[in-house]
Amino acid sequence: MADGCTEQEKAVAVLVENFYKYASKYSLGKNKISKSSFQKMLQQELNHMLTDTGNRKAADKLIRDLDTSHDGCISFDKYWTLIGGITSPIASLIHEQEQQSSS
Amino acid sequence: MADGCTEQEKAVAVLVENFYKYASKYSLGKNKISKSSFQKMLQQELNHMLTDTGNRKAADKLIRDLDTSHDGCISFDKYWTLIGGITSPIASLIHEQEQQSSS
Repeated sequence: MADGCTEQEKAVAVLVENFYKYASKYSLGKNKISKSSFQKMLQQELNHMLTDTGNRKAADKLIRDLDTSHDGCISFDKYWTLIGGITSPIASLIHEQEQQSSS
Repeated sequence: MADGCTEQEKAVAVLVENFYKYASKYSLGKNKISKSSFQKMLQQELNHMLTDTGNRKAADKLIRDLDTSHDGCISFDKYWTLIGGITSPIASLIHEQEQQSSS
């Protein structure tokens, strides 16, 4: 991201970079993540978010139900939808935590 | 987010906080963003990302096609999907820019 970009743009770039980190490091193709790499990514990158909010079960169910494309891998779109699916049920909780930590 | 949380968790928290910022500031209900607030948010928060990548047209189309729920507002899930829809076509471009700026 160019200098002077907003917090929102930096946050999007972090999520994009995290996809490519696990897409290249653990998986077959450059632009896909395997189901196991995605699970590893959750443990390493979203651990507090899943643990602090009791959201781990929801995330596990999301992954169990994961209809990966025929090659068993997760595209960027699917990755983004999964992160959203994990975040959505706890968005208000994250918001409250953020409000408390900034007050 | 608790101290010691990962970059990915901080990035998710930024995206969550941004939703609530526009949900409360410009809109009716606490947990929804109006279409116009979403457009304002794009201009103020994702401006470089849209401009630098010629992605503005794609974003405008996304919003035009936006099937807001019956109250004309955007839920968190829809907000997250829209940001993903805007990010997805330029994810590899963002990745390249990040690689260049960190090399």
